Amino acid sequence: MTKQSTSLRVRLPVFVFIAEVIIVALYSAFVTYDEEADAKFQTNQTNPMHNAVYRDYPFFIDIHFMIFVGFGCLLAFFRFYGFGGMVFNFLTATFAIQWAILVQGYFQFSHDGKIHLGVINLINAEFACAVVLISYGAVLGRTSPLQILVMVLLEVPVFAVTEWVVLKYLKINDAGGSILIHLFACYFGLGVTFVLYRPSLNEGHAKENTSYHSDILCLMGTLFLWVFWPSFNSALVLKGDDQHRAILHTFIGLSASTLTAFALSAMLNKNGKLTMADIQNVTLAGGVTVGASVDMMISPVAAYALGVIGCIACMLGYKYLSPILARRLRIQDQCGIHNLHGLTGLISCTAGICAILTASEEVYGPSFYEIFAHRAPVEGDPKLQELRMVIPGLKAGLGRTAQKQALFQVAAIFSTIGLSALGGILTGFLLRLPYFASPSDDFCFDDEPFFEVPPDYDSPVRLKHSNTNSVEDSTPKMNGV
Amino acid sequence: MTKQSTSLRVRLPVFVFIAEVIIVALYSAFVTYDEEADAKFQTNQTNPMHNAVYRDYPFFIDIHFMIFVGFGCLLAFFRFYGFGGMVFNFLTATFAIQWAILVQGYFQFSHDGKIHLGVINLINAEFACAVVLISYGAVLGRTSPLQILVMVLLEVPVFAVTEWVVLKYLKINDAGGSILIHLFACYFGLGVTFVLYRPSLNEGHAKENTSYHSDILCLMGTLFLWVFWPSFNSALVLKGDDQHRAILHTFIGLSASTLTAFALSAMLNKNGKLTMADIQNVTLAGGVTVGASVDMMISPVAAYALGVIGCIACMLGYKYLSPILARRLRIQDQCGIHNLHGLTGLISCTAGICAILTASEEVYGPSFYEIFAHRAPVEGDPKLQELRMVIPGLKAGLGRTAQKQALFQVAAIFSTIGLSALGGILTGFLLRLPYFASPSDDFCFDDEPFFEVPPDYDSPVRLKHSNTNSVEDSTPKMNGV
Amino acid sequence: MTKQSTSLRVRLPVFVFIAEVIIVALYSAFVTYDEEADAKFQTNQTNPMHNAVYRDYPFFIDIHFMIFVGFGCLLAFFRFYGFGGMVFNFLTATFAIQWAILVQGYFQFSHDGKIHLGVINLINAEFACAVVLISYGAVLGRTSPLQILVMVLLEVPVFAVTEWVVLKYLKINDAGGSILIHLFACYFGLGVTFVLYRPSLNEGHAKENTSYHSDILCLMGTLFLWVFWPSFNSALVLKGDDQHRAILHTFIGLSASTLTAFALSAMLNKNGKLTMADIQNVTLAGGVTVGASVDMMISPVAAYALGVIGCIACMLGYKYLSPILARRLRIQDQCGIHNLHGLTGLISCTAGICAILTASEEVYGPSFYEIFAHRAPVEGDPKLQELRMVIPGLKAGLGRTAQKQALFQVAAIFSTIGLSALGGILTGFLLRLPYFASPSDDFCFDDEPFFEVPPDYDSPVRLKHSNTNSVEDSTPKMNGV
Repeated sequence: MTKQSTSLRVRLPVFVFIAEVIIVALYSAFVTYDEEADAKFQTNQTNPMHNAVYRDYPFFIDIHFMIFVGFGCLLAFFRFYGFGGMVFNFLTATFAIQWAILVQGYFQFSHDGKIHLGVINLINAEFACAVVLISYGAVLGRTSPLQILVMVLLEVPVFAVTEWVVLKYLKINDAGGSILIHLFACYFGLGVTFVLYRPSLNEGHAKENTSYHSDILCLMGTLFLWVFWPSFNSALVLKGDDQHRAILHTFIGLSASTLTAFALSAMLNKNGKLTMADIQNVTLAGGVTVGASVDMMISPVAAYALGVIGCIACMLGYKYLSPILARRLRIQDQCGIHNLHGLTGLISCTAGICAILTASEEVYGPSFYEIFAHRAPVEGDPKLQELRMVIPGLKAGLGRTAQKQALFQVAAIFSTIGLSALGGILTGFLLRLPYFASPSDDFCFDDEPFFEVPPDYDSPVRLKHSNTNSVEDSTPKMNGV
Repeated sequence: MTKQSTSLRVRLPVFVFIAEVIIVALYSAFVTYDEEADAKFQTNQTNPMHNAVYRDYPFFIDIHFMIFVGFGCLLAFFRFYGFGGMVFNFLTATFAIQWAILVQGYFQFSHDGKIHLGVINLINAEFACAVVLISYGAVLGRTSPLQILVMVLLEVPVFAVTEWVVLKYLKINDAGGSILIHLFACYFGLGVTFVLYRPSLNEGHAKENTSYHSDILCLMGTLFLWVFWPSFNSALVLKGDDQHRAILHTFIGLSASTLTAFALSAMLNKNGKLTMADIQNVTLAGGVTVGASVDMMISPVAAYALGVIGCIACMLGYKYLSPILARRLRIQDQCGIHNLHGLTGLISCTAGICAILTASEEVYGPSFYEIFAHRAPVEGDPKLQELRMVIPGLKAGLGRTAQKQALFQVAAIFSTIGLSALGGILTGFLLRLPYFASPSDDFCFDDEPFFEVPPDYDSPVRLKHSNTNSVEDSTPKMNGV
Repeated sequence: MTKQSTSLRVRLPVFVFIAEVIIVALYSAFVTYDEEADAKFQTNQTNPMHNAVYRDYPFFIDIHFMIFVGFGCLLAFFRFYGFGGMVFNFLTATFAIQWAILVQGYFQFSHDGKIHLGVINLINAEFACAVVLISYGAVLGRTSPLQILVMVLLEVPVFAVTEWVVLKYLKINDAGGSILIHLFACYFGLGVTFVLYRPSLNEGHAKENTSYHSDILCLMGTLFLWVFWPSFNSALVLKGDDQHRAILHTFIGLSASTLTAFALSAMLNKNGKLTMADIQNVTLAGGVTVGASVDMMISPVAAYALGVIGCIACMLGYKYLSPILARRLRIQDQCGIHNLHGLTGLISCTAGICAILTASEEVYGPSFYEIFAHRAPVEGDPKLQELRMVIPGLKAGLGRTAQKQALFQVAAIFSTIGLSALGGILTGFLLRLPYFASPSDDFCFDDEPFFEVPPDYDSPVRLKHSNTNSVEDSTPKMNGV
């Protein structure tokens, strides 16, 4: 019964092969190389070392490591769901990138009827992929691989449309992706989990815990993300001093939130001990909170303060808000994405708006109009000519004032939250269709439904079946001793 | 008896110290810096940032990570042979690189009686090292460290000679090393394992299985390789758009084979579950299949298709071919290198030949004669002068036609397979000499013969000796519960 | 009682929040961007791709990975102290870098009353952090997080002063940090552990051992450090061929010490087996021994020989010297830092002095006076004008002879050892104050005092309390079987 309904034997291949046929058809019809990857554009003026690949690839590879290894380890924290955490992350990320190349390509990288592909598209696709993985954190352990693939199928286009609307029409500053990555991912994920609510899981679940090794594995994931986060936040920032600052701010913010997380973890624990879940998650808060203003001249101390504030909000969220969301609002947020991406994302956006309102040409010099590109004078404005003497090739802007830009930021926040929550809820309803092999409550957080497990694998349920031990006992291995 | 015969106390130091004396003598007599690493060549024209180290080192460090960490974790999948997998990989790789610097140096990097050393040699040596590690996969768990060192000692020169013959005389296109790395490594390894055949292992072995943690460790290895594979495939490609394409194709190919591997794994499993060994190995097939044409203008969709095809071949190989090879042909291929490197290598070579036959100046522009260097006009041909107007510094080629180049590719494939299989068989015979501390059948896939194991280490054999439990029970820890 | 005395509930937050207030105040008052990170300095001459961030960031990120992931895994080798090893490394490193930015900034990067921040400062701060982590290795498992934070608080300034004195007044060559990083860290750590001597631990401790998984985790740490060590040794070396050589030498040195470590490990073991602790530590010796001469024209074979010699010294130190230090001199060196950093550091310094004494313009060409900057002619010397024709922008030096430079190196060695040992001893006395939550002897090498441990965590002490098993049994899990 339960076993049969989770079999992937027919469903997964059918989904994948149909998807692959469609992808092959679309790649074949629409995807070609961009100028930097196409041999035809090489001339006697071309210096091979000036190819864009050398500017983008180092950042790409760091982010690539974060997505596949960092997220993979981070999501493997459940004792009996280590395979699931790591392997479904692998599957999700792979499919999300393939799909994002097409969907983002259509909106952002197409001209002459073709999608033009370079490493820069891969970086953008990895960001789309990060969005999906964050959302997935909300329903980790309670979904089948098929449900996740369907979620990817829907979330990527909703994300790409939102991204396109926000970047093309609202034209905001959001270098670190606080709005488009973290807020979008958070509210989409909360939408999905709201619909997939499982009342029985609020009582606690025998398998919803960690082991000594899974905790260490998860911490390695945290460290991988922590180490490469400066590349994540700065990959799409303007080259030069802007990218330099983005790296510095991310480092400082993470570092501040890490120190704070240790203090709060001990303080809020009744035995004065450290809790691994805090070290694994809350330490990362600073990377999000510096996001929206990461390339601006906010000063190092502001990055530090943002790290501390983000950490406090995130920690209090885990401690007090998450249980309320689960019990009162039917929002079971498995990995606490609302704390690590939602609350911190909102703080980050607020800080970004403050940075925009207080930014002045005095502090930034003429490059002010490069960072705040939409505040540059419109084409034809004599001021633009003047500025181009100092910054050759400066693009014409929209002549926005600080206040106007701030309003657009606010508009972007609300429209992103609205679109993502709506998209998440609709996706959730689709995922509840019976065909997608959702595991029963008993088999949540358990690798057995979807994996051939090795002989030493040993979940409480399995023990119950073979040994008549009680399910409540979550430490079966210790039993015999 | 068994214990004594595997003691490394005298044999390993004797081998290593003799090797080190020889290496020191040869380094001392023949190894010096190349122009980019030698202080003497610095002039007032030298821009330090144009040093070759900045072009090569980022790719080197990625490959370096793959070899030492990626392969190390990947080979640690046995439950009782985790130390062996990771530690012998470390030993093998270290010795192989030292040795390859000398042997490849003699054939490829020597002039004025000296081997000239730079980071570029290290990249080449790491490739030689990858060859040895792939071959080693065929006999993993069934060889002593001494046997592996002897194998390195012989395989590196056979490889270097083959490489030299193929590159110098046959002059082929093989950017990703499909022929020289994957096919060579595969058939050398199969040659060795053919001679080291152990009939009793065909019946299954009590220790030939994984544990929950070793499976996760191995998957981390897969992910490390997966993430950095674009650097592996593109490290020696021409700089500029060629390298850019190599990165894109490798990424797309891997991504396609990963998605396909999930579908096939569920489809071919009778319970409709995923098998970790598939996720750990078959996902990587696409990285190999795009290899031979990785820098060519094959179009993104072709890279995708190659990934899918390679994955299918690799998966069917694991499922149906490997058991036949073991039972009928005495070829016990422990890690299935024939599936992941042999079959995929052949597909890659075929694709490479198709790409060569269909390549045209129309698609590539004048840089056609850079990628297909041997098709460039010979020195003196007026066409060469013309081309040099567009591509300054274009080297004279051999004026080969597409068909001629394709024939040379075919010749390279067969001569590589022939030389490597022969070399592997001869090496196998040497490894059977009694002095090299080969473990008995009982102690295969077991860390105990070669390591001081920690108190919680617990293999079936050990239990048998101390507890009279039966060897057949492969899950001793669960017993008491 | 014991439990209470290690509670971090009040102490840790108090320390951290006070530290953070001070750091925020100091950052606010004194820390600003350096020219490469400040938007104001961008002019129409600025090529964004020439920003220093692109020269420094690749090296920074490698070192960053070593510090947070590499060291973290390496220190997680204890069976019951895996959380402690990895988590306290995270805490220590984070705080050390924040603090070092300020302290080193004051001494090295301040002008106009401000500390100027760029990625280059972060690299320097990571080195200061490496110093602290090495010292910490001496007292691993026997200190509370609070004691470690206090140690950071004191060690960073002592280090920064020593660094400033040595670089500013003694003006030495020490590219790989043999003197300032390895010797300083070693003797500071030994000073601390000398004062924190615990006689009872000399008898052996029930929890002072590894597990199969912790050994593998630790080996991953070794491999992470091994792989990125070339970046560590070359990060602050002159760009161009100097940095190229530093990479080559480090690679060769590590490779030589690794091969040697395998031979010695088998040779010195009475069963002729390999010992994981040797593979985990001694393999790294070569990275230290090449340090002081890493950028010089010592020839590849010298790097190889240094690797071998360093490995032998390090191995003999572990085998014979460490037990003597612990029993006779009250120096309990938990990770053997005296072997891996002290002995090898001294060898490295000696080799550096030899390289200085034998260096000649003949071998180096005119760039001789760049590498040995203090040997360049003084301002006004006609030789300087001449040299500037060949090397534009050569800085005036001190006109030192080889002998004089060598004497300054010796002076630097002794003053560094003296200052660090003294600093360590004083720090040790402070750490013994009762308030810092030091764990009792019983709870050394145990995660329980400082962490909420998961259900499967199971230390001997815990078992003793609940089951009356004896503490001597260090393999409790096997008991029931």
